Amino acid sequence: MANTNVPHIVIVGGGFGGLDAARALRGKPVSVTLVDRHNHHLFSPLLYQVATAGLSPGDIASPIRWILRKQSNLHVLLANVRRVDPNARLVHLDHDDSIAYDYLILAAGSTHSYFGHPEWSHRAPGLKTLDDALAIRRRMLLAFEEAEREKDPAKKRQLLTFALVGGGPTGVELAGALAEIAHHTLRHEFKAIDPESARIVLLEAGPTILPSFPESLRNSARRALRKLGVEVWENAAVTAIETDAVAIGGGAGNPDRLLAHTIVWAAGVAASPVGRTLGVPTDRAGRVIVQPDLSVPGHPDVFIAGDMASFTHQTRKPLPGVAQVAKQQGAHAARNVLRTIAGEPTAPFRYRDPGNMATIGRAAAIADFGWARVSGYLGWLLWLFVHILFLIGFRNRLSVLLQWASSYATYQRSVRLITEAQPSEPDA
Amino acid sequence: MANTNVPHIVIVGGGFGGLDAARALRGKPVSVTLVDRHNHHLFSPLLYQVATAGLSPGDIASPIRWILRKQSNLHVLLANVRRVDPNARLVHLDHDDSIAYDYLILAAGSTHSYFGHPEWSHRAPGLKTLDDALAIRRRMLLAFEEAEREKDPAKKRQLLTFALVGGGPTGVELAGALAEIAHHTLRHEFKAIDPESARIVLLEAGPTILPSFPESLRNSARRALRKLGVEVWENAAVTAIETDAVAIGGGAGNPDRLLAHTIVWAAGVAASPVGRTLGVPTDRAGRVIVQPDLSVPGHPDVFIAGDMASFTHQTRKPLPGVAQVAKQQGAHAARNVLRTIAGEPTAPFRYRDPGNMATIGRAAAIADFGWARVSGYLGWLLWLFVHILFLIGFRNRLSVLLQWASSYATYQRSVRLITEAQPSEPDA
Repeated sequence: MANTNVPHIVIVGGGFGGLDAARALRGKPVSVTLVDRHNHHLFSPLLYQVATAGLSPGDIASPIRWILRKQSNLHVLLANVRRVDPNARLVHLDHDDSIAYDYLILAAGSTHSYFGHPEWSHRAPGLKTLDDALAIRRRMLLAFEEAEREKDPAKKRQLLTFALVGGGPTGVELAGALAEIAHHTLRHEFKAIDPESARIVLLEAGPTILPSFPESLRNSARRALRKLGVEVWENAAVTAIETDAVAIGGGAGNPDRLLAHTIVWAAGVAASPVGRTLGVPTDRAGRVIVQPDLSVPGHPDVFIAGDMASFTHQTRKPLPGVAQVAKQQGAHAARNVLRTIAGEPTAPFRYRDPGNMATIGRAAAIADFGWARVSGYLGWLLWLFVHILFLIGFRNRLSVLLQWASSYATYQRSVRLITEAQPSEPDA
Repeated sequence: MANTNVPHIVIVGGGFGGLDAARALRGKPVSVTLVDRHNHHLFSPLLYQVATAGLSPGDIASPIRWILRKQSNLHVLLANVRRVDPNARLVHLDHDDSIAYDYLILAAGSTHSYFGHPEWSHRAPGLKTLDDALAIRRRMLLAFEEAEREKDPAKKRQLLTFALVGGGPTGVELAGALAEIAHHTLRHEFKAIDPESARIVLLEAGPTILPSFPESLRNSARRALRKLGVEVWENAAVTAIETDAVAIGGGAGNPDRLLAHTIVWAAGVAASPVGRTLGVPTDRAGRVIVQPDLSVPGHPDVFIAGDMASFTHQTRKPLPGVAQVAKQQGAHAARNVLRTIAGEPTAPFRYRDPGNMATIGRAAAIADFGWARVSGYLGWLLWLFVHILFLIGFRNRLSVLLQWASSYATYQRSVRLITEAQPSEPDA
């Protein structure tokens, strides 16, 4: 499929990094193959809104083929990447397929990590894919339905307790949205339970939620969460996830066990396991330790972008796993490939931080731009504007605006659907 | 939960029949429990659009609790009904639960039937629930993706052949939408296949597709389908569904085996099995043979509405399984319950047929109102208007209009997402 007269560049991953790498190669004299195991690019910053029934999957995802349809030097392949052989310059896929490359850009992202406890995943699902979001939505909505049928008051309480493990932006945004559902959306719809009595507990192992934000914004966020009725437990390290309960160690004042039917894991991430198959040094989270130009030590034809890269040449800590880092690194990796093809030296990567944002339920958000810090209603308007702006596709932007306007006006959430991931049973 | 001072009416099913039964009881001195195994009411006439990636599940479904939130004498329960004991006046649910009733309205609808071949269901999924629609969408989109990777031309052809079994409105509407996707939407997005070469074959066992429509409209539909590139095979009775193939008996001119990777079942329906548990006569499709007032022979406190009822007092054939019959019967059953409570005689049911419609892809539809027959573009506009009008919820109406306008203008389908029904795997 590759045009044999021009260099063949393989991009693994159709997320923020892979997509911006592909775009930087548009119109260049190269042949590009982009491989992803999903057919869609996902706008992951809004994934928590799918998990909390505010948006439909179609609002935040678009087919990769469609996004890149006008790029004639590019070919999209739906496949699972098993491993990379950097010496033979081969990417091995499922079904014993493989693709040869001249240059490789790896941007396969990350998955959630349970710190050596994969058995926790069934009790506390993480939030990385659309399917994860739909599974969490189903679990959360079913908890209220089961509580409505439950006669035992203790079990009812347990069904109406929601534990969110991890006080980063995902945990905070999930907690805010969940509190809104329990305390506003579902009010008056049940007879045997009062959704307002639901407990939403945000558990953070470290001393503070949102550690990547400055103190003043963390305080605003904490206040906004408490106003929404979220219990914020800091210094609450989860030591075990049981069925319908979380065991907590350490923290002063926290009980050592929280009975909660719905537990969501927003605590740890690990880089895509593809990085480890390169046979080069990785960090504890499985990220490949890259050179200043994002290439892999010993393999100047392989570049890494986004969550898979451990880039430590700018700040002591690796750059965070956010969309902006992935986008900038993806484009930079592609430009370095073009430089190498042209016989020029590669350029070192430098992250330009546009700022950090998180939203807390209805009409409150925090934003840190370095030169300015915003919280409350203004932060929320900014958050809205930025997220609409970066969404791909005009139809998605319009649809998301419509959903948000409608739920802002009515407190309703448009996609409170319990779907079962199981087709219906036919009659014999 | 039931107010013991007023009669307790149980409604089984939150579809068109159950919902209109519930609405007819609004503000009346009764206590109502509505039981459904899904948390949402589904606007099933547009289900094929979810299966063909034109609409999101959230556009055509709304939580039953939300729809009926203002009805203070009503309680919604998410549960599976196992059986009914009309002598003890008990509805048995899952988890060994049961509800006692004074009056019962059964409107649990229908499922697809494989005429004694339940093993066909995995090879040829039917289209009754949101989960069915998502499974069909996934299969259809994956077929194009797999064809793009396939090297064997014969297998490629098989992957790009789509068989729709059943020439009723569902089969016709699916065929039209699928042809639009293959011949317009996906054009230019693949490199190794030409989506336009996809074959869409509509198989009808009887002598004509759309047998419930008059001859002139059937001819319009056939022409519109052929213009879209759909092969219409009439007198083509399916004798077996194999893996990736359909065996066909009888028909002159038709081959006896069609190699098709994607097969969708739109041929047979059977009433909900709950009807059979009443211990009263049912017809071959499992429908309960009802009295002129929709009650069950021998049980004047049990009424049946919609797809579960075989009502033969108006026309020789039972009334068709369409939304309008279910809505009118649901409301009528509820009014007969109120009459019985008031000590009045029940009234016989009479169906007022508002007409029949089916759409065939882009900008073509047929509509039969008895006094008028419309086809082509005008039919399509009418179809559009009626479907928007009957959708529940202002937000859904606006959202569906937006999707339709956008896909009419761009040939795009907004929700071409392959989701896996499987949460992502965590890293250990």
